[in-house]
Amino acid sequence: MTRKELIEQIREKQSFLCVGLDTDLDKMPKGLKEIVKKEYEEEEMTFGMLFEFSTRIIDATAPYCVAYKPNLAFYEAYGIEGMAAFEGIIEYLQENYPKHLIIADAKRGDIGNTSKMYAKTFFEQYNVDALTVAPYMGEDSVTPFLGYDGKWVVLLALTSNKGSHDFQLMKDENGERLFEKVLKKSQEWGNDENMMYVVGATQGQMFEDIRKLAPNHFLLVPGVGAQGGSLEEVCKYGMIKDCGLLVNSSRGIIYASNEKDFDEVAGQKAQELQQQMAKILADAGIC
Amino acid sequence: MTRKELIEQIREKQSFLCVGLDTDLDKMPKGLKEIVKKEYEEEEMTFGMLFEFSTRIIDATAPYCVAYKPNLAFYEAYGIEGMAAFEGIIEYLQENYPKHLIIADAKRGDIGNTSKMYAKTFFEQYNVDALTVAPYMGEDSVTPFLGYDGKWVVLLALTSNKGSHDFQLMKDENGERLFEKVLKKSQEWGNDENMMYVVGATQGQMFEDIRKLAPNHFLLVPGVGAQGGSLEEVCKYGMIKDCGLLVNSSRGIIYASNEKDFDEVAGQKAQELQQQMAKILADAGIC
Repeated sequence: MTRKELIEQIREKQSFLCVGLDTDLDKMPKGLKEIVKKEYEEEEMTFGMLFEFSTRIIDATAPYCVAYKPNLAFYEAYGIEGMAAFEGIIEYLQENYPKHLIIADAKRGDIGNTSKMYAKTFFEQYNVDALTVAPYMGEDSVTPFLGYDGKWVVLLALTSNKGSHDFQLMKDENGERLFEKVLKKSQEWGNDENMMYVVGATQGQMFEDIRKLAPNHFLLVPGVGAQGGSLEEVCKYGMIKDCGLLVNSSRGIIYASNEKDFDEVAGQKAQELQQQMAKILADAGIC
Repeated sequence: MTRKELIEQIREKQSFLCVGLDTDLDKMPKGLKEIVKKEYEEEEMTFGMLFEFSTRIIDATAPYCVAYKPNLAFYEAYGIEGMAAFEGIIEYLQENYPKHLIIADAKRGDIGNTSKMYAKTFFEQYNVDALTVAPYMGEDSVTPFLGYDGKWVVLLALTSNKGSHDFQLMKDENGERLFEKVLKKSQEWGNDENMMYVVGATQGQMFEDIRKLAPNHFLLVPGVGAQGGSLEEVCKYGMIKDCGLLVNSSRGIIYASNEKDFDEVAGQKAQELQQQMAKILADAGIC
């Protein structure tokens, strides 16, 4: 998906919401197991639970979001069946919601020939639109992901977690911080048409500093909701003239209800966020 | 596997060799396909190739090494069948070579609840002994992997690739470099019984600096062979009184021959390295 197409979707849906699919079998809603039991064989139950939960969440939230972010950890944890579910969910999205951006949240990154294999996995085998990538290993760990038309690297810059302070805020002799180095250096490898950055919603005013170094890049912003970040603050400091933000919510949407109505409630939560976003986009003159 | 058990293996085999399983279908030896065709159904060919290649390499090299390092990228790239092969190879190792350390080279690391899922995947689902982890996201991205008895985090410190210079050598106002911060900070989370560090063989004399900060930790050292690192130099600066090194070779062993004798030649290459290592261990008074 190109930047232009992504912005068109944001304008059309009046939303820059990304729904995170962190599908944890320990948190499945009541009653889902019974439904799945009727439709799947005993040995397909893990696949069935993951697939049915995710696709019902997708159907309910699709009108209100522009992107989905399946988190690989939550599929890998269930072995082969988990990966089959990941594959099934990607295919389901591609068939039914081809205009939604799919971000595989896998935080990959390795020496060149290994990153090349990861790129092949996600951009050829699964054919997703974007992949989160960790910057620690530098240029040759990132560039193999940049050679695909219409595909995106979503590079970790300043993450939403407490541990982000351990290394990302380290300052060099001139006061430049590690995440700022990542922002600057990586712009020698990619551009705002094939690279986004992860910036946690919990980082508040730091968005001002980020925008000094990456004025036009899209930012993928986790941490609104369960992790405590504020949508208003993110937009105040991070929004640019064509939006430039994808705000992710995972647990706040997908586990909003533990009852049979989990998908309906997920849809409502997504719609609430979409309505807040529509207002922000209107106030900013974007929609 | 405990540190004590690992050191016993090193003494017994007179080897600190780790064989990296970067199993690329584009590099399979001549004739293997015909053998696999006879034993596997058409739809199992990918599994069959990956499994047969890897297990034959394992059988040929097991007497000369103490560890195997399957590289997840090279299994994930082949989708579900690739992951089934990974699972099969782990089971094969556990059944036939239970004293070999298994390091899943996956370079994972994410916010706490996601790292917890990755830990579950590798230390419960696959039950490997060790996992490579990327430090960029800090404490809560690493500690979930440290809560397992006899399991190891292998944290990236100073990697073997060219890109390692981009961020890992960044200096703070006191001249302390990022990889040094990683070494220091991470010792607040784990110790030399549950944490190792990745230090590339291409880093030469930097091993001296590493040993100042991590005098007792095991170091996993990739980059000997295809990437140009020197075994002698690594040992000169990095070896400690109970060895403290696992030196990895992947391509230099597993693709040493492209002919039918690929496993035999891989065994010879592993043995050559083992013999060099035996001499070094003897000279150091370890064996």
